[in-house]
Order: sequence, then structure tokens, then C-alpha cells
Amino acid sequence: MNKSKTIILAAGQGTRMHSQKPKVLHQVCGKNILDYVVEASKESGINDIGVIVGYQAETVKESLPSEIETILQKEQLGTGHAVLQALPFFDEFQGNLIVLVGDAPLIRPETIKSLMLVHETNGYSVTVLTAEFDEPTGYGRMIKNSAAELIKIVEEKDASPEEKKVKEINSGMYCFDAQTLIFALKELQTDNVQGEYYLTDIIEIMRKMGKTAGTYTTPDYEDIQAINSKSQLAEAEAVMRRRINRKLMDSGVTMIDPATTYISSQSIVGQDTILYPGVILEGETAIGRDCTIGANSRLVNAKIGNSVSIQHATILDSDVDDDTNVGPYAYIRPGSHIGKHCKVGDFVEVKNSTMADGAKAAHLTYIGDGDVGENVNLGCGTVFVNYDGKKKYRTVVEKGAFVGCNTNLIAPVTVKEGAYIAAGSTITDDVPEESLAIARARQVNKVGYLKNK
Amino acid sequence: MNKSKTIILAAGQGTRMHSQKPKVLHQVCGKNILDYVVEASKESGINDIGVIVGYQAETVKESLPSEIETILQKEQLGTGHAVLQALPFFDEFQGNLIVLVGDAPLIRPETIKSLMLVHETNGYSVTVLTAEFDEPTGYGRMIKNSAAELIKIVEEKDASPEEKKVKEINSGMYCFDAQTLIFALKELQTDNVQGEYYLTDIIEIMRKMGKTAGTYTTPDYEDIQAINSKSQLAEAEAVMRRRINRKLMDSGVTMIDPATTYISSQSIVGQDTILYPGVILEGETAIGRDCTIGANSRLVNAKIGNSVSIQHATILDSDVDDDTNVGPYAYIRPGSHIGKHCKVGDFVEVKNSTMADGAKAAHLTYIGDGDVGENVNLGCGTVFVNYDGKKKYRTVVEKGAFVGCNTNLIAPVTVKEGAYIAAGSTITDDVPEESLAIARARQVNKVGYLKNK
Amino acid sequence: MNKSKTIILAAGQGTRMHSQKPKVLHQVCGKNILDYVVEASKESGINDIGVIVGYQAETVKESLPSEIETILQKEQLGTGHAVLQALPFFDEFQGNLIVLVGDAPLIRPETIKSLMLVHETNGYSVTVLTAEFDEPTGYGRMIKNSAAELIKIVEEKDASPEEKKVKEINSGMYCFDAQTLIFALKELQTDNVQGEYYLTDIIEIMRKMGKTAGTYTTPDYEDIQAINSKSQLAEAEAVMRRRINRKLMDSGVTMIDPATTYISSQSIVGQDTILYPGVILEGETAIGRDCTIGANSRLVNAKIGNSVSIQHATILDSDVDDDTNVGPYAYIRPGSHIGKHCKVGDFVEVKNSTMADGAKAAHLTYIGDGDVGENVNLGCGTVFVNYDGKKKYRTVVEKGAFVGCNTNLIAPVTVKEGAYIAAGSTITDDVPEESLAIARARQVNKVGYLKNK
Repeated sequence: MNKSKTIILAAGQGTRMHSQKPKVLHQVCGKNILDYVVEASKESGINDIGVIVGYQAETVKESLPSEIETILQKEQLGTGHAVLQALPFFDEFQGNLIVLVGDAPLIRPETIKSLMLVHETNGYSVTVLTAEFDEPTGYGRMIKNSAAELIKIVEEKDASPEEKKVKEINSGMYCFDAQTLIFALKELQTDNVQGEYYLTDIIEIMRKMGKTAGTYTTPDYEDIQAINSKSQLAEAEAVMRRRINRKLMDSGVTMIDPATTYISSQSIVGQDTILYPGVILEGETAIGRDCTIGANSRLVNAKIGNSVSIQHATILDSDVDDDTNVGPYAYIRPGSHIGKHCKVGDFVEVKNSTMADGAKAAHLTYIGDGDVGENVNLGCGTVFVNYDGKKKYRTVVEKGAFVGCNTNLIAPVTVKEGAYIAAGSTITDDVPEESLAIARARQVNKVGYLKNK
Repeated sequence: MNKSKTIILAAGQGTRMHSQKPKVLHQVCGKNILDYVVEASKESGINDIGVIVGYQAETVKESLPSEIETILQKEQLGTGHAVLQALPFFDEFQGNLIVLVGDAPLIRPETIKSLMLVHETNGYSVTVLTAEFDEPTGYGRMIKNSAAELIKIVEEKDASPEEKKVKEINSGMYCFDAQTLIFALKELQTDNVQGEYYLTDIIEIMRKMGKTAGTYTTPDYEDIQAINSKSQLAEAEAVMRRRINRKLMDSGVTMIDPATTYISSQSIVGQDTILYPGVILEGETAIGRDCTIGANSRLVNAKIGNSVSIQHATILDSDVDDDTNVGPYAYIRPGSHIGKHCKVGDFVEVKNSTMADGAKAAHLTYIGDGDVGENVNLGCGTVFVNYDGKKKYRTVVEKGAFVGCNTNLIAPVTVKEGAYIAAGSTITDDVPEESLAIARARQVNKVGYLKNK
Repeated sequence: MNKSKTIILAAGQGTRMHSQKPKVLHQVCGKNILDYVVEASKESGINDIGVIVGYQAETVKESLPSEIETILQKEQLGTGHAVLQALPFFDEFQGNLIVLVGDAPLIRPETIKSLMLVHETNGYSVTVLTAEFDEPTGYGRMIKNSAAELIKIVEEKDASPEEKKVKEINSGMYCFDAQTLIFALKELQTDNVQGEYYLTDIIEIMRKMGKTAGTYTTPDYEDIQAINSKSQLAEAEAVMRRRINRKLMDSGVTMIDPATTYISSQSIVGQDTILYPGVILEGETAIGRDCTIGANSRLVNAKIGNSVSIQHATILDSDVDDDTNVGPYAYIRPGSHIGKHCKVGDFVEVKNSTMADGAKAAHLTYIGDGDVGENVNLGCGTVFVNYDGKKKYRTVVEKGAFVGCNTNLIAPVTVKEGAYIAAGSTITDDVPEESLAIARARQVNKVGYLKNK
């Protein structure tokens, strides 16, 4: 194929989104709309990308990788005007200029490639990406001659009854011959009601220049769906969700209900792992093989080993190794590493802590800023008292220690290897190896106290 | 438009619901089916409403606002019989009598208005609300003459093969000229197999009286869907959910998956607030702008400020102010008020309590019948001991106090401003300002105890 | 009907599942795919069933009830070869031989019965179960003569353009006359590209023998959907879920959103019980009447009485009696029995324990290996200390006792009837009847300690 550059139109506000954010920075499956378009270009082999920004230009610019060029369109005077601003970007460029829209995140690399292939094979000067809609009302229609060449694009309001019957509609995405486009842009006028520059006028201009135009019709109409409202945002999310889940299922992941399984496009999941309904995987989460991820578990940037069972838990920016059980109702917060064959049970929080292989915290426990050794057992109600109101400190519980229920470990403190803490103790000092620590009052029974009362 | 009254048929049991409750008192998106019909009448401008009750008449009556008249239909002898019972309600009334059915909650005010408009514009004596069904089998068909006037309604079992092809079907809802109806009702017979009075016979009676009848076909067939089974109840719920969510998204609310976001029709949500899958908003819940309501959060009659983050929490009849974080796995029970910049963390219950701005309860804490001052920090495992087995008492923790982990505050008790409670203490007496309270046993290490054993 | 036997083809690996498990052992709504096929045969009245196994033959065999015969197909040389292996199973059998496929779990007993009825009524020697597909591409087509007799089955790749237009397609399921099949099988050849024995060739062989063949077309195309990938597994799960939920709603169960309510085929639910979205009922769960099962509750082999309210809880292999409230965020583990009018509140775990009528554990409590008497109140933070690091022991709290907050009950220990334990106590010895037990340090206030600092 020819060398190619891409420009992406991303200057609009998107008023129908009713949002403070620019439209292209809303997210679909955890990633900005605009990022999908950028990545589709890259995956189709075109890394030379210019993004035309306008509304909240700085914010949009900052959201993009640094290698992406941005071009400012101060006023929004139509799609033709937008491309005119980008002239310096492809001024002297010999090759294809792809125009994409920043609010259509479902565009696939293979569609861009097919567009270019049709463009080059037919020697068109411009090829429009189109779709066939059974109900084309509202869209620009493709008017062709008997040789199947594109003659012009007519908008709904300008279309004759005959033209309105045309079902092939405009996506707003194009492949141009860059140098021909530069010549044609000079002829672009604003002689219309809005007083704007319409990129669609380029077709007729090029025809007058003796050039030919054509179309490539994508078989998957989702490719071209632009997002203009929060409803359309949700629809795009549903399509993307289907695509992501389909791909994972095709690789061997089991899903009880893919319609309600929410996975970011950057996450990976191993073969024969079962995802229950309501599972949410965000960020760059990686899950191994043969795991069970129970309903309503939410994992963000989590790294999970093989044969791990997670029931109804929340795991943020942490790792969990093979054969460990988590949940239900467990909360693992950032910076934690849970080893193999561990148990993080119900109503247990782990924060910025490590648990070595075989360590167990079965219920109602808070492990904060702690290092828990191999095969340690933390009784129900154990609290790592990591905060004195001013600073946070670490707690160490060494290998094989046993911490009785409802124990406070007041950091900084170390419970040495094999030590045993009696239930109900508040531990302020280190406990030596294989020693018993106790810190509680003796029981007194006032016999018959209630009878007498 | 003419003056109008509405009668709503709500006397049936709904045997196919297999329920102890009358059909019209089942709920759709948290509101009784019948209430939707009443409200559609009101929103179309008709506040003079009579509801015909029969099965569990008292229960149905009690469910209605007091200004709604109810008319008892002792025996259920057909739709015509039901309207006959309501005669005193519109006896001397000059104007439109709208007949609605109490089990069709999806009827919209605009549809009632269009029905009346067609009725009045054409000078019909009766106008039937209809829909076009591709598969009309089972429904009453509209038989018209060449002038598009309605001649009669034929039931499936009485329809000729030609009549069965008619796709326009009867909704059971009508706009009558009240006085003409009164005359026509006198002619109504029970000469049919069931021995019942059929309201549909009125069309032919009126034609014989020299009056004309017509139809208004709603473009949205959901309008007329009656609920006769729990499956149909679930279908109506899905339609209503779509309507509610569509409206919220159109106003700027972001939903990851509107299909699994469950919002009562009385709830409101601000712009750019994100609702994750499985969120349930019940009753009169109000949420501000820029909030994140995480997956599987359930809010009932909650008032939430702006920029609040709620993860996987349950909030009942309580308020949460701006910039506060709640959850995951938090439970705020009725009568609570959480201030700004607060934290109600994981495994924390708050009941009938207040937390002033900046107060924090990060984990495993029970705040019951308490008043927590500004910037108070409640350590992990804090318990407000509000119940002595007989009565409940309140606990006050004043501004800036620090409550160590696993502390019991035995109410009634006050922890004064800036006081500090050592972890593991059971506090029975008030703690003075800026004082340290401690109530725990000293630690004893039995060194080597386990080695010797 | 004639006597009948069934053989089920279940020897394949299912490579497109990308799984370590044989295809037929994947689950749909909590039950193996193959089990559905076996049960459909039984429910259609045919209990004499042979399953042809191959890939992981032993594992498949072990998954089946002992009365099911298995036949080993060592090499997978086509469907005809599979049936040939089963010859000893129906060698001398006079009657219908039904051939089902082990990967089509949606087959219904009524479909099998209709297949047999068509078979016998028409005196066919073989009747193929078929469906009509609008898009039949990829499936074997039924080629018939003018007498509507089946002449042959042509595969996609062998079909003429005319034959490709046929919309009636092969399910791979058949009703044969057993003895005719035995004769025909002898003629089966491997003269095809794959060198396999195709069961579809039998039609032409039988025709040559002067026998007639026909088809029965199921009106419900889901009947014949085979599972070849994880996507198809999820689709079958969705169909089965719809069937199960439809049946329950028809019997009076209320579901807010049947699309996200996940119920095993062995579970039962009573009338007017409301199931909220995300409810998961697994195994043999039974729920009574008038219960509320809140969103995201998961019940596995649970027996729930009437008028029970469960909010966002997990219940495993346990019973809960009438009028009890559970949750939100409660976890009842196997072997527990909760009485009537009990409360198991938020952040409460119950494990292998009993709670008598009226017992309450409102929050942040662990009841492990315990027996809790009538009307006992367990304060917030109560821990049954059942494990000393080596063994587990039981705790008994008798009728009417009151356990103060943050109490440890160190098992084995008994709190006698009507006893009262002060908050913050660690109880190591039995507490006599109506006695007060206390085990905590006295409070010391260091007044002004923080001011001086």
C-alpha cells in the first residue's frame, strides 16, 4: 500500500452529551473514545496521526500520547474547515490521507485497510467509507453514476425523493489522495446556509478536476457509529463489550452471561477461567487459567494467578498468586501481594501489605501496612493498628505465628516466628519467637447478678 | 379541548399472576401499576378520575390518593358492566369520558391527548385507542368502512377469515362522548355465551343511533400493553426501565449499561454522574453532579451531593454530602447524615447517626445512634455500644477526637473535643477534652512458652 | 408408542471450546450439557440410554448416573462409526433407536416424542429431526421428493445451487427403526475425503433397501442448537435461563429482571417471592412464599422458609426459617440452621452453627461452630473463637443470654441461660445462669494529656 497519514476530527464539544467533558474524552469500556480511533489507525499501520482539536483543546491534547500531533481549529466552521487547518500536517505528503472522526470508537483497523485497498485498486482520488442502512433518513446519501463512481454526496435536506431512496450513507470518514485533496481544498466554498466549509463538497470539486471518486461499504455498520449522546455512548459500550467478550470466549474463557460481564479492552483472561455475571475487570487486569471469578467481583489492574477463586470481592492494583481464595466481601487495596494457597476471607481488608504463601485471614480482619509470613493464621477480628493519628507504621508477623481473635497489633511491632498471641490482646511490644503474648483482663463472674436485680 | 373525566377499570383479580395481591397493585420500577395509569390521566390534564374496584376493593382503594374516587363493582360481569357501575360518576357530565385500563401502566399522557384530539377533531362519539400488530391473533379487530369509520369490533373467535387479517387491534381504552355513552349503555345486552356486558358492543349501538366512531392508532404499541402474568410484568418493567434511563441519559447522566441499571421513576440524577451496572435507585433518591455510583450500589430515598463516590454500598433514607467516599461494602441505615469530605469505608455500618465534615470511619466500624464531630477519626473496629439489652443510648464524639482501633464506646458517653482513646479500650465514662483515655490490660510475653511445650 | 432406546453421541473433544474439559461436561445453568440430553430422553419416556464416549472417556463416564451404559469409541471416525460402536447396545432390539447428540442440551422431551410420533405414524424407517433456518448456510440440507419423503441429506460443500436454497436443515438427531438400521449400517462406506463413516449416508442406503425416510421439523429451533464454542455455551445458557425463569414466573414468582436472574434448573421458588436483579440460585435451592431476595444474593443448596428477607447475602448449604432477615453483606456458610424471626445482619458470618428462633446477630459478628439459643442477642463485634491453632471447638450461648459488643467467646465454652456479658470481655470460662461476666480493664483518663504534650 501507499504511505499514509491519518487526521482525526476531534474539535467538537458534543452539546447533546450534556457534559462538562469534551465528547471524545468520554469512555467506552474504560478507554477514551478518541484513543480507540487513534489505535485503529495505528493497528491499520498508520502511525503518522494528526488530531484536530478545538473544544477544550488543551485537555484533549493532554489525553493523547505525546507522539500524536495536535492541530488547533479555533473556530468550528465545518468539516472542510477542520481539514484546512491540518494542511501543514500533510502539505508536502505524497500518499493517502485518511480522515477519521474522533467520536466513532468502533472503527476497526481492518475497515481502514479495506478502505485503502479499494481506494488504491480503483485509482480513486477520494474513497468514502460508507454503510448500507435500511433506514437511511437523516444521513448523507451516496449518489453514483452507472459506472458505480461516486458523483456527489447529498444531505437529507437537499435530497430529491429519488435520492432519498438511496440506502448507502456517509460515515464522514475518507481516504484521500493527499496532493489531489490540497488542490481541491482551494476550491471549497462557504456558499451554504450555515456558511461553513463542507468536506462533502470535495467530491464534486474533484469530479470537475477530472478525478474519480468511489466508496467502500463496510459490512459491519457498527464501524461508523458516531457518539452524539449518552444513549449512543451506552450503545457503543454494549457493542465494544460484545467484541471484547467474544474474543475472550473464542480463546477459551467461560462466561455465564457475557451481556453483564464488563471487561476493559486491555485485560486478559486465561483458558477455562469462569467469569460470573456482574464481573468487572478494569485497567490492565490479567487473570490466569482455571480461575473462578464470582459474581460482582471488581478487579482493577489486578494480576491473578492460576486456579484462584475470587467470590464477590474488590481487588485494586494488587497481585494474587495461584490457588488462593478471596472473598466473599473482601477488599484488597493497592500495593498488596497475596501469595499462593492463601485465604483472604469475608469482611477482610488488605492494604499495602504482603501475605506469604499459606497465610490466612479468614474473617473480619484489617491488614494494613503489614507483612504476613508463611502459614500465619490471623484470627477473626485482628486489626493491624497502623495509624496513630499522625503517621503510619508497618507491622510484621513472621512465619508460622498464630494471632488470636480480636487482637490489636500496634505498629510498629513485630510478632516473631512461631509466636502465639492470646485472643483479645492489644500488642504494643514485639513478641519473641515461639513465645506466648497475652494482654487481657481476667474474667470475673458475678454469679446470679441478674437474678438478684 | 373539551372537559374530560377518566374512569379506570381496576376490578379484576388477575388470576394468571398467581398472586395473593390484586393485579393492579403489583409494581413496575417501584410504583404500583395502577398509579401509572392515574398519573398518565393527570399528566394529560384530567384530574377527575374514578377507579372501578372489585377484587380486594378496600386494598386497592387504600393504595390510591384520597382525591381519587373509587366505584365498587361487586360482581365482575364484563367491561360494559364495569362502566355501568360508574354511571353516577359521569351522569350529568358534558364532555369526554376517557376509559383506561388499570393494568396497562405504560400508557403515556401524550397518547391520551392524541386520542382526545382525534376524537374531537373528527366529531366521533367514541374513539378507540388502537395499535397495529403484525401478529394480531387473539386481539379484537377494528372493522372499518370505506370512510375509515369504525363499524364494529370483532373478537378473535367471532372474526371471519377476512376480518382476521386486520392488524389494527383494540387496546380496551376509549374516549367517549359522555352523554352519548349514557344513552348507548341503556341498550347494552348480555346476549353472549359468557352472559356479560361487553363495552365493545357500544360501537354498533352508537352506529345504530346515527353516531360515528373512529380510532386513534398509537405509534408506540407499548402504550397499550396490559399485564396479565408475571412475565408480562417483567416485560413492562423492562420497557419502563428503558424509558426512565433514556430520559436520564438525555439529560447528561452516564450509564455503563442501562439494561442493568434500575432506577425508580421518582429518582433524579445530575449531569456527568456515572452509574455502573447493577445500581439500584429506589424511592425518591436524588443524586448530584459528577458522582460515581459504583456497581451494585443500592440507594433508597437517599440524598447524595456532588462529586460523591459510592462503591458497592447500601444507603437507606439518609443523606451524604459533597466529596464524600462511601464503600465498598458500607451500609448506611435510615436517619443518617454524612457530611462533606467524609469517609465511610469498608464493612462500616452507620445507623441513625450524624458525621460532620471530614469525619472518617475507614473500616470494620459500627456507628449506631451517634454524633461524630468534624475531622474525627474512628479507628478500625470501633463499636458504638448503643444497646444494653433494654434501651438504646446515644454516643457523642466531638470534633477532632481520635478513637483507637477496636474501641468500645458504651453509650451514653461523650468523647470531648480533641480527646484520644488508646486502641483496645472499652470506654464507659466521658473522656475530657484533649485527654488520653486508656482501658486495657498490659502485655505479658511468656518467652519461649511454645518451645518448652 | 413402540419401545425405544436412546444413544447419545458424546465422544468428541470439542476443540473449539479451547478447554481442558470434554465439551459435554461444560455446564449450562449449573448442570452438565450431557445431563440435559440424558434427562430429555428419560422425560420423553426412554430410560434405556447408551452414551458413546471417547475423549476423556473415563471422566465422562464418571459424570453419568450409574444406570447409564457407556460405549467406548476409541477413534473418532465419524457419526456412523460412533453408531457402529453401539451395535451391541441395540443388537437384538425391536423398536425405535433414538440418536441424540451430547452437545445439544436444549433438546426437549416433547420434541423427542413428536419425532417418534411422526416416525411411527408415517411408518418411516428413519426420521430426521430438522429445523427451518432462514440462513441455512453451513448445515446439511434435507432433499425431498414430491411425496415429501426424504431422499438424501447433502452437506453444504456438496450441495448444488438449487439444493443450497433448501432451508430445512439437519440436527444430527434421528429416530431409526433399530433392526433396519442394523442392516443399513452394514452398507456404510468411508468413500469420502475424510475417510469417515457418515450417518447421513444411511438415508440413501435405506432408500435403496426400499425403505422410506422422513423428517420432523421442530417449531423451536433452539431444540437443536449444538454447542461448539464458549460463545455458543453462553447462548445456550441464556436460552435455558429464559426457559427456567419463564416457568417460575408462570407459577407466580416475581422477577424484576429475568435477563439477569440466574437460577439452576433444580431450584424451586414460591409464589409472590420477589427476586431482584443479579440473584443467583445454585444447586437444589428451595425458597418459600412471599420472600424478598435482594439484588446480588447468592444461594447454593439453601432452604429458605416463607416471608424471609435476604439482602445482598451469600448462603451456602444452609437453612433459614420463616420471617428471618439476612444481610446485607452476610455470609452463611455450610451446615448452618437459622430459626424463625432471627436476624443475621451486615458483616456477619455464620459457619456450621445453629441459631434458635428470635436470635440476633446484627453486625460485625462471627458465629463459628456455635449453638445460639432463643432470643439471644449477640452484640456487634462478637467473635466465637472456635480455633486454637490446632483444633476446633463449639460454643454454646443459651436462651435469652446477652453478649456485649466486641466479646470473645473462647471455645469450648457455655454461656448459660439469661447470662449477661459486658462489652469488651474475653470469656474463657463458662458463665452461669443469669450471671454477669466481665473481663476487661478499668478506664483511666489522663486528663489534659494531649494539651500538655
